[in-house]
Amino acid sequence: MESFFTFLEKRVDDSSSLLCVGLDPHISDLESPTAASALTFCLSLVKQTARYASAFKPNAAFFEVFGAEGWTALREVIQAIREESDRMGSRIPIVLDAKRGDISSTAEAYAQSAFESLGVDGITLSPYLGKDSIDPFIQIREKGVFVLCKTSNVGSDDLQDITVNGNEPLYLHVAKLAEQWNEKNNVGIVVGATHLDAMKKIRETVPNLWFLTPGVGTQGGDLESAMKVGLRKDGKGMLIPVSRAISRANNPAKAAADLRDEMLSFRRT
Amino acid sequence: MESFFTFLEKRVDDSSSLLCVGLDPHISDLESPTAASALTFCLSLVKQTARYASAFKPNAAFFEVFGAEGWTALREVIQAIREESDRMGSRIPIVLDAKRGDISSTAEAYAQSAFESLGVDGITLSPYLGKDSIDPFIQIREKGVFVLCKTSNVGSDDLQDITVNGNEPLYLHVAKLAEQWNEKNNVGIVVGATHLDAMKKIRETVPNLWFLTPGVGTQGGDLESAMKVGLRKDGKGMLIPVSRAISRANNPAKAAADLRDEMLSFRRT
Repeated sequence: MESFFTFLEKRVDDSSSLLCVGLDPHISDLESPTAASALTFCLSLVKQTARYASAFKPNAAFFEVFGAEGWTALREVIQAIREESDRMGSRIPIVLDAKRGDISSTAEAYAQSAFESLGVDGITLSPYLGKDSIDPFIQIREKGVFVLCKTSNVGSDDLQDITVNGNEPLYLHVAKLAEQWNEKNNVGIVVGATHLDAMKKIRETVPNLWFLTPGVGTQGGDLESAMKVGLRKDGKGMLIPVSRAISRANNPAKAAADLRDEMLSFRRT
Repeated sequence: MESFFTFLEKRVDDSSSLLCVGLDPHISDLESPTAASALTFCLSLVKQTARYASAFKPNAAFFEVFGAEGWTALREVIQAIREESDRMGSRIPIVLDAKRGDISSTAEAYAQSAFESLGVDGITLSPYLGKDSIDPFIQIREKGVFVLCKTSNVGSDDLQDITVNGNEPLYLHVAKLAEQWNEKNNVGIVVGATHLDAMKKIRETVPNLWFLTPGVGTQGGDLESAMKVGLRKDGKGMLIPVSRAISRANNPAKAAADLRDEMLSFRRT
């Protein structure tokens, strides 16, 4: 079986894209505050943007808020992405943005929930509980994780920027841990586009890890600057999620195509 | 409206208990691997142990794994706890063990999911994203959070024990942050029973915060030692979750009663 990042890179090549389409059915963006409306919202986005997406990233929170019906909607969204993939003949990885993190027996249940019940390919995780909370998710090399390293929000400074071991910010320590954990080519890290200095240090420290880089667009991160700093030498290594800048556009398909092309123009190779 | 910890302390007084009954329907403990079986498992536990419980703590992972049906089961469990509370005339707080942590707009959706859709009273959260990821959960003083500080697992050392700011472990920094965040008497911390030295330092640093202290029993933590180190001067300040030692007992009601009484004997006042 290929590793998660081999799978992702195949799709990146097929689509010439680093764009990860975020599926975040914020209640405020829906016609009505219902799971049915969230489903319609996501299915339309999937249909319009699949061609330009290197990956899809549904955020669990916006489905959970609708309880059981939200969970059913999430499964249907995942199914729809599989169908679009089949139609195109190029499988699109699905990363569940869930930021889970729990002790091992519980982490096993979360891994089963994501990879078996829902059937996604990857998941975002918090590093706070350490290696044994990550392990249940990375046993199978075709399934991958992105570990939170330096997040895009303002409050990320509270913990992630603290100086540890006498000389480095905590986020660098986490980046190094993630590199150690990446024995099967299925561990990447979350590095927000809103902190370019941090991203630069992280890229210098872990030249080969994949980044999931939110924060472009609505959150204020600049795409070109972020890609200049964060891309690997091979012009890959960054998966760039965009949600509201696409979902709120008059023409989401065109917005996704434009973003894909813009990203392509910033890739060095 | 009373604060979350005023509400919890009222129940602690009513029940003379610091025992928090964990509702963790591990698939391996169920008659069949189904949401229906998880529900039966939890309803039986609720019925047998409510009298002795200062709180209930369902862990989201073991419901999520059953998808939409699991979510429905979780709601029914919460409803059953409310009914037991009404029957006893003493409301039992419900803490959702979910360890969530996301940027603010997403955290708002998680807060809505927990406090409105499910209707629980408290939730466990990861501190890794900082204050703005906690804020949406602590705006309403009657709803409370327990922020992960020093967790009970072995891997907790990977991040939580790193020396920060030149002289203290990260978990102490988190404990101090939690104390700052506790403006409305609704922020506590998770401090595992398996690391007594850490618990001692934390209690010295934050003498008044409530601890949620997992790790007693199956995970190897000793109840008496933990309570000696972690109790506040008023004989409260520790909510002690136990799940498998109760659910796997021949007589869960007796196991819960015995634990309640044992805890009572270790309280100083």
